[in-house]
Amino acid sequence: MVYKKITLIGRSSESFDAAVDDAINRAQETLAGVHWVEVKELGVELASVKTREYQAEVEVAFELEAEE
Amino acid sequence: MVYKKITLIGRSSESFDAAVDDAINRAQETLAGVHWVEVKELGVELASVKTREYQAEVEVAFELEAEE
Amino acid sequence: MVYKKITLIGRSSESFDAAVDDAINRAQETLAGVHWVEVKELGVELASVKTREYQAEVEVAFELEAEE
Amino acid sequence: MVYKKITLIGRSSESFDAAVDDAINRAQETLAGVHWVEVKELGVELASVKTREYQAEVEVAFELEAEE
Amino acid sequence: MVYKKITLIGRSSESFDAAVDDAINRAQETLAGVHWVEVKELGVELASVKTREYQAEVEVAFELEAEE
Amino acid sequence: MVYKKITLIGRSSESFDAAVDDAINRAQETLAGVHWVEVKELGVELASVKTREYQAEVEVAFELEAEE
Amino acid sequence: MVYKKITLIGRSSESFDAAVDDAINRAQETLAGVHWVEVKELGVELASVKTREYQAEVEVAFELEAEE
Amino acid sequence: MVYKKITLIGRSSESFDAAVDDAINRAQETLAGVHWVEVKELGVELASVKTREYQAEVEVAFELEAEE
Amino acid sequence: MVYKKITLIGRSSESFDAAVDDAINRAQETLAGVHWVEVKELGVELASVKTREYQAEVEVAFELEAEE
Amino acid sequence: MVYKKITLIGRSSESFDAAVDDAINRAQETLAGVHWVEVKELGVELASVKTREYQAEVEVAFELEAEE
Amino acid sequence: MVYKKITLIGRSSESFDAAVDDAINRAQETLAGVHWVEVKELGVELASVKTREYQAEVEVAFELEAEE
Amino acid sequence: MVYKKITLIGRSSESFDAAVDDAINRAQETLAGVHWVEVKELGVELASVKTREYQAEVEVAFELEAEE
Repeated sequence: MVYKKITLIGRSSESFDAAVDDAINRAQETLAGVHWVEVKELGVELASVKTREYQAEVEVAFELEAEE
Repeated sequence: MVYKKITLIGRSSESFDAAVDDAINRAQETLAGVHWVEVKELGVELASVKTREYQAEVEVAFELEAEE
Repeated sequence: MVYKKITLIGRSSESFDAAVDDAINRAQETLAGVHWVEVKELGVELASVKTREYQAEVEVAFELEAEE
Repeated sequence: MVYKKITLIGRSSESFDAAVDDAINRAQETLAGVHWVEVKELGVELASVKTREYQAEVEVAFELEAEE
Repeated sequence: MVYKKITLIGRSSESFDAAVDDAINRAQETLAGVHWVEVKELGVELASVKTREYQAEVEVAFELEAEE
Repeated sequence: MVYKKITLIGRSSESFDAAVDDAINRAQETLAGVHWVEVKELGVELASVKTREYQAEVEVAFELEAEE
Repeated sequence: MVYKKITLIGRSSESFDAAVDDAINRAQETLAGVHWVEVKELGVELASVKTREYQAEVEVAFELEAEE
Repeated sequence: MVYKKITLIGRSSESFDAAVDDAINRAQETLAGVHWVEVKELGVELASVKTREYQAEVEVAFELEAEE
Repeated sequence: MVYKKITLIGRSSESFDAAVDDAINRAQETLAGVHWVEVKELGVELASVKTREYQAEVEVAFELEAEE
Repeated sequence: MVYKKITLIGRSSESFDAAVDDAINRAQETLAGVHWVEVKELGVELASVKTREYQAEVEVAFELEAEE
Repeated sequence: MVYKKITLIGRSSESFDAAVDDAINRAQETLAGVHWVEVKELGVELASVKTREYQAEVEVAFELEAEE
Repeated sequence: MVYKKITLIGRSSESFDAAVDDAINRAQETLAGVHWVEVKELGVELASVKTREYQAEVEVAFELEAEE
């Protein structure tokens, strides 16, 4: 079966680990068969938030079932 | 809330600016909460079109609501 | 009309060519108007499979119709 | 004499050309001897502005005189 | 038939679009069968010109006929 | 108004998160209007320090006011 | 003697190996002293051909004789 | 004396910091003179493990003594 | 347990698939626990061989046991 | 203490080594605590100079004291 | 007027500076209007030569006149 | 026979050429069949040495015999 990858950006006011987990959590809520995650970018947003928002852009790979 | 990024290629017979706008317009027709766009590639198609088609590959970032 | 690109990873026990074809086949089952494919990564999985699994990560570009 | 490069992000509600010019204008207001500019990234901000803000990240190269 | 790619740098005192067109125009004067163009770099020359010279480095792909 | 980006390397004996925060703290002491930060490199120095020094190279983007 | 590199895109309805060979064959028809080839991109064209056209962009290095 | 670099992938069920430390610990068990470490990739394995395995690919630089 | 990656270049007079297999075969002769392989470069040597030698540079990842 | 990196382009009519030294010399005239330098680009200017000008673009890392 | 770039690999038994000069010398023998050169790769060949051959892959930019 | 590549960092107080030679010399002391070398990074260390230490990170490719 083919894998598909999508790109998510997780966000946390605590840490980069929590930002990555945030993206994985979201992926696993709506997708079955998540196999692995690759971190593409780390950053911190300061202007539009109260203090500091840690952000992690990740690619999430999951196995496609019958229909995408 | 998590952001998601998708990749679109806008097309215009006029200019690169119009090709980028073309992709943003399409994204905003079907997606709420588009936050920003990153230009990844610019090119011009000549062989399969009448004159020149300006193309812009962009990543569109939008905020995910409940379901993707 | 705008193009969209998605990322798939085709898999084959035979060859990289077959892995790329695997991803294209899957894309064409569910998408009309696939225009071209770009190979992004080639790899071989050994630990979790019987012998060798050839994998090809590809970007598939297709023309968007009315709704995505 | 040595050149120095700095990184600016010009912004425009009109076009990418105007965003690049915005950065060059700012550089030339405060720096003598600007020699060339390299475009590093193009993007569009949508969330925090009224309509669309075209942004161009550029590296500006200028000749250093006596003191930086 | 095989494609060949060459690298040109178009130049314009007006805009990046015009600089890309400048390179395409030059390619089409001397080459038949130009199929597509990829933009590789955008820059602005300031030191050796009167005002601003917009430059676009592009790769031009064309179909080879009998002899190159 | 134009943004400017500078490159800092934060350092911590604790973690990468703390190294990034170290760089942001330093930026905010001397610069107003810091908008966002991009992580460029992570590393650990071992030879010239007692135990382990976590380092994070970041680009800090801030809005330029009147003079740089 | 100096080497020169040119960029060709070989095409085949069979496989990527055949697409690379297609480019090498073309190079060796018109150039003496081809030393090596580097594969830069692999892709598949679907829209403008009957079935699938495997494409390989390669850089061909050859030794320059007296005149280019 | 010359430095040598090797590539290790540390793993942890806790955090990326712990994954990097895991790789450094392993390097220091078998190598004298480890000078610095560069993080190359961060990822999370989900399919073949119980919960989440944080992974960090790092390059470890150490000073070569007499024999490698 | 930590993974280690090494870089090999497999060679074949037949195909790129065979060149990748050549590198994997060599790795598995001397290393236990090879988990996966990533293809980094494909090329063809022409000058120092009879006909064409297909080469594949790959990174081989294996699990470290007690001593490297 | 945090490090800062700036980008300089050293120039020499003699060699690349001298161009790098030119940039380091300039940095050390105005900055205390220069720790290391990374070479980013090497080039040769021919059009606007008498013979050949070797250029080296480098990033210079130095330790920030109290104020930048 | 448009610039064109070609890729040459200069070779020297002495040094990288001499390898770059070798490529520039060759370019200037057959091309008028060479403006600048960018170094893309440095390497040393050992297997097929007596001692060490320093090689420099460079892109040479020159102004196109009437015909290429 | 398969090639293997390792990464070394040569060092010299004189020049980058000498730093590259330093790494090649070290490789040839312990390895038979070194075929070629690719330069990956050039840098200068200033903080932990008396004057300036030129460093060259290189990949050394050699032919594997029976056992690695």
